Amino acid sequence: MKKLETQLQHRLQAAPLKHVKIQDAFWSARQRNVIETVVPYQWDALNDAIPGAEPSHTIENFRLAAGEAQGEYYGMVFQDSDLGKWLETVGFVLSIKKDPTLEKIADDVIDLLGRAQQPDGYLNTYYTVKDPGNRWTNLRDNHELYCAGHLMEAAVSYYEATGKRKILDIMSRYADYIASVFGTQSGQKRGYDGHPEIELALVKLAQATASSKYLELSKYFVDERGQQPHFFDMEAKERESGSSTSSLSKKKRLYDYFQAHLPVREQKTAEGHSVRAVYLYSAMADLASDYNDAELMNACKELWKDTVSRKMYVTGGIGSSAYEERFTVAYDLPNDRAYTETCAAIGLMFWAYRMLQIEKDSQYADVMELALYNGVLSGISLDGKSYFYVNPLEVWPDTADFRNDMSTVKVTRQPWFGCACCPPNIARLIASLGQYIYSSNETERELYVHLYIGSELNVDISGKAIRLTQQTNYPWDGQVNMELALDQAAEFTLALRIPGWCRKAVISVNGQELVAPDIANGYALLRRVWQHGDQIQLTLETPVEVVRAHPLVRANAGKIALQRGPIVYCLEEADNGANLQDIALPDDAQFDVQYDEGLLGGVSVITTLATRSVLQADDTSIYRTQAIDRALVPITAIPYFAWSNRTRGEMTVWIRSN
Amino acid sequence: MKKLETQLQHRLQAAPLKHVKIQDAFWSARQRNVIETVVPYQWDALNDAIPGAEPSHTIENFRLAAGEAQGEYYGMVFQDSDLGKWLETVGFVLSIKKDPTLEKIADDVIDLLGRAQQPDGYLNTYYTVKDPGNRWTNLRDNHELYCAGHLMEAAVSYYEATGKRKILDIMSRYADYIASVFGTQSGQKRGYDGHPEIELALVKLAQATASSKYLELSKYFVDERGQQPHFFDMEAKERESGSSTSSLSKKKRLYDYFQAHLPVREQKTAEGHSVRAVYLYSAMADLASDYNDAELMNACKELWKDTVSRKMYVTGGIGSSAYEERFTVAYDLPNDRAYTETCAAIGLMFWAYRMLQIEKDSQYADVMELALYNGVLSGISLDGKSYFYVNPLEVWPDTADFRNDMSTVKVTRQPWFGCACCPPNIARLIASLGQYIYSSNETERELYVHLYIGSELNVDISGKAIRLTQQTNYPWDGQVNMELALDQAAEFTLALRIPGWCRKAVISVNGQELVAPDIANGYALLRRVWQHGDQIQLTLETPVEVVRAHPLVRANAGKIALQRGPIVYCLEEADNGANLQDIALPDDAQFDVQYDEGLLGGVSVITTLATRSVLQADDTSIYRTQAIDRALVPITAIPYFAWSNRTRGEMTVWIRSN
Repeated sequence: MKKLETQLQHRLQAAPLKHVKIQDAFWSARQRNVIETVVPYQWDALNDAIPGAEPSHTIENFRLAAGEAQGEYYGMVFQDSDLGKWLETVGFVLSIKKDPTLEKIADDVIDLLGRAQQPDGYLNTYYTVKDPGNRWTNLRDNHELYCAGHLMEAAVSYYEATGKRKILDIMSRYADYIASVFGTQSGQKRGYDGHPEIELALVKLAQATASSKYLELSKYFVDERGQQPHFFDMEAKERESGSSTSSLSKKKRLYDYFQAHLPVREQKTAEGHSVRAVYLYSAMADLASDYNDAELMNACKELWKDTVSRKMYVTGGIGSSAYEERFTVAYDLPNDRAYTETCAAIGLMFWAYRMLQIEKDSQYADVMELALYNGVLSGISLDGKSYFYVNPLEVWPDTADFRNDMSTVKVTRQPWFGCACCPPNIARLIASLGQYIYSSNETERELYVHLYIGSELNVDISGKAIRLTQQTNYPWDGQVNMELALDQAAEFTLALRIPGWCRKAVISVNGQELVAPDIANGYALLRRVWQHGDQIQLTLETPVEVVRAHPLVRANAGKIALQRGPIVYCLEEADNGANLQDIALPDDAQFDVQYDEGLLGGVSVITTLATRSVLQADDTSIYRTQAIDRALVPITAIPYFAWSNRTRGEMTVWIRSN
Repeated sequence: MKKLETQLQHRLQAAPLKHVKIQDAFWSARQRNVIETVVPYQWDALNDAIPGAEPSHTIENFRLAAGEAQGEYYGMVFQDSDLGKWLETVGFVLSIKKDPTLEKIADDVIDLLGRAQQPDGYLNTYYTVKDPGNRWTNLRDNHELYCAGHLMEAAVSYYEATGKRKILDIMSRYADYIASVFGTQSGQKRGYDGHPEIELALVKLAQATASSKYLELSKYFVDERGQQPHFFDMEAKERESGSSTSSLSKKKRLYDYFQAHLPVREQKTAEGHSVRAVYLYSAMADLASDYNDAELMNACKELWKDTVSRKMYVTGGIGSSAYEERFTVAYDLPNDRAYTETCAAIGLMFWAYRMLQIEKDSQYADVMELALYNGVLSGISLDGKSYFYVNPLEVWPDTADFRNDMSTVKVTRQPWFGCACCPPNIARLIASLGQYIYSSNETERELYVHLYIGSELNVDISGKAIRLTQQTNYPWDGQVNMELALDQAAEFTLALRIPGWCRKAVISVNGQELVAPDIANGYALLRRVWQHGDQIQLTLETPVEVVRAHPLVRANAGKIALQRGPIVYCLEEADNGANLQDIALPDDAQFDVQYDEGLLGGVSVITTLATRSVLQADDTSIYRTQAIDRALVPITAIPYFAWSNRTRGEMTVWIRSN
């Protein structure tokens, strides 16, 4: 294993959730929503206690596995993961705020988990209840290790919140058992899961238990992926009792759906199912860091470049094909058939967050923030009760409802899904948002601020306790005020991210503007001996920016998008009437921005003048040589994340440019 | 039945194929190609004599039905129609030119048809061979009457070419049998076919046999369609032995796929499978004419308006959804996922041709011509050996090959199809092209010229034999020279179509320019006593026209198309390099037109200057606020019909407008 460059040895540590308290005009209400509404609702869903909703059967499956109920397994093969995501969210919630009632519910369900665990440590309700004897026979399709991964993440989250080891022990036993089944030793299976997830979960488990063997197991899964002879062929052959595997090898794009078309170190382009991809890449980044593995880090960087510079929507959404929920070819980013699964944008944040700790480069924080405020947040309604699984950048309701090739596009958010992956994923993201804001580095005495969110951080640097309080109306306003509370003066670097979207940032310390602050990789580095009560003011200019896509992005040729700060805007029919495609923005458009407290939970709205066709009522010919007159009319843009919270209607992010 | 307005009583009669001889620089080679290449190739296909091709089994199915071979039925449920289309084409070919060898083959296969006919007149190989006893149990899906219709069309074509009655008698017997099974009498089925076709075929059979009962049967099928209680429900109930039909009634768009959602007279919008639609509308126009049925004609006109002003591509293609090969909603005309089946453009010609005879309005001829030179002709390669079933207006090969929602788009023409409907349909259209050029009206002494194609017409008007000879390099040139050969002077109106695309037309008779010719409904009406040897010159200005779509056509917002004469142009990668979406045409673009004899079988090429991005090699960011410089570069457009005859590559009809 080659050594990474020096910066890898000086990686950042994200501030743990318990050390960050969010108090923010934009985010606090959203966290409260998760805590007060989403978590109880999801618990009811897991227990089939929501009238009219498709049954989940998740808890019942665990009761069946524990021998405490009679009946049949019901649900997806990966139903266990729903409990994992919920329990992980509960851990985050308890890190934010004690809640004995919730903790009791969680402790009880953890006890149930323990009783459902098999004597050898195995813990999966599908195989225990429905198909005993066939464990590990279809890693490619059946999400066995994926479910284990989500329960491991839950274990770590719950342990970190409560200090209770029970679930950590349960999942460690399961991990020990998995480590005995899989590996390169004789008698072990050379397998890995079709859906990456356990890889990043094992890294967390290794950290929580201070046990390097889980890191080794994660590394084994990552490096085994895509090796020849191909495990998915071998296991298929075994399943089919020695029949030929020729049908598999004939597949057009062999195993790229699973990111198993090549050993991961040889992968240069983001391929296949986009959620699986970013979960895998997240684990790769973790391992590159923990093992100082330059080769693996280079693979991550190649994949990152391909993802964010060729396959990412302007909203931070990824995965442009509904079929296989996957990446397609470079620059193929149709807006009206964008898949851009909410979970994929969340996964992109996971990956960006990990890259950021290794490289201290704001490009990762920029993408993390972009996805957060746009492609992730669009997945949940303002009231937290309905969700988008698919997040298109253009919606034409009548067409989307009619056309079969747009059948995955829902015109309005849906209350819940049979395959309920996105709602719990948003919930755990919002609940754990605190850990994305700050990082620090003990040895280099650095404190990084990645996101501007009103919050209080408690961190030790060189043994000195530091409290940083951040106040802001971000994202509606680029003014950020920070104050330090120190027991004693401390020398360290306060690194403030200058967002990629910001052309002008002014920094003052104690009212004194810094003339030429040291800026490296997108962070202003303020190194000094800080005193108790020091005030830092950051002023980010947030004019409306006209964004253009690379000319190879076919769908956006001749179009622009509006962005202000991290917020990507869209036009909605509710404000602009129908036929949004007809609106064209002049080159010299002037923008007005107004914060509207009463609109969509409080948003800044952009207004400007644009041109629209002036069509005579009797002008019905579909083709003509005469150009149609156009008139200047006012248009209104709202934040993309807030669309579809009023009436059903058209929406577009990209607007024609004159 | 209400009386139609007066013009219906003075409808035109299309000149029969035998009276028109095409001698044309553009079309003669294409007709020769059909006669010399396509017809023999298709005969081999019907006989499974093409190495490597999917078997057709069509002839073998007839042998099985005749009891002259052993084996199983093979092929689509509508396999018989392939023989119908081929035999109809053979009739057209024999009308153009005697060919004893071909006629012998046809006579033999007609004898086989006779032997395959059942004692009661029934003639369908699928039910005879594969499912005897279940005739007429699934009209909705199984194309039984559809196959009958194609064989009836063949019968009329072959009879008109050869005067031989045998196939006409066979199909009359079959029609008599069908008339006994279907109708409103007690004991008769109130059914009709899921795929309209027999309706228009019965009109032809009625004309050829001078038997009004086939007209009555056609009228029955047309008027029964969509009535309640719904026949498709009733027959489904019968098939499912009395089970509930609730699954059917729950369908979102009930029976519009079959144009059976409403009685046809109540239909106002073009719905469902586009080929089925235009076949039905063609029969409706026939019946409106033959019965002087104003109500039916009004339905036709409503449907026409909806089709050509809301659901037609600029190429004359129709049907914008691959799923169900159907119309969708108004103005939903995506270019890259256009279905625009070749057969649908052909069917649109059928319908336009019928409307034209009733209304003498050039709008119908305009659409007929538009479809012919663009959406139809694009379906066949220049060498006549490969075909497009689907005719998109934009092709991005890598994306189309990768994306599942573009899976019906073929990037290059294909040699043959398992479901081989389009190739024989193009063949019969090109072979019968002569009948689309001229119409006449005995009582009003009118001779209409709809299409400008080098040809010789022999027609009687008021008992006087008239020969009109047309010479032209159309569509490359708008100069048309006509000469009359008369036995004696004759007074009649020579009506010359002034195409909708033409802004300036000059007409001279014997070198004398007509200053203000009488123009009505798009035709210049030249009424005079014509003399032998009279020369008529028509000069149509054919500048390059910049065409815009109605602002509600979302896919074409901010774009233009180039058209010259009836020819719609496109950009191909072969001439312009890749990334055609980046090309933008300035408002003041000047066009140069050159005829290139050596290119694509001889085409006029348009060149102009357009702008393209000047991208620095290191400019890889996918989104940016800086506009990219653009430079003027030459671009070349070729006729749309001729695309994909060189190398695989991108193509687009619609070009960004600056």
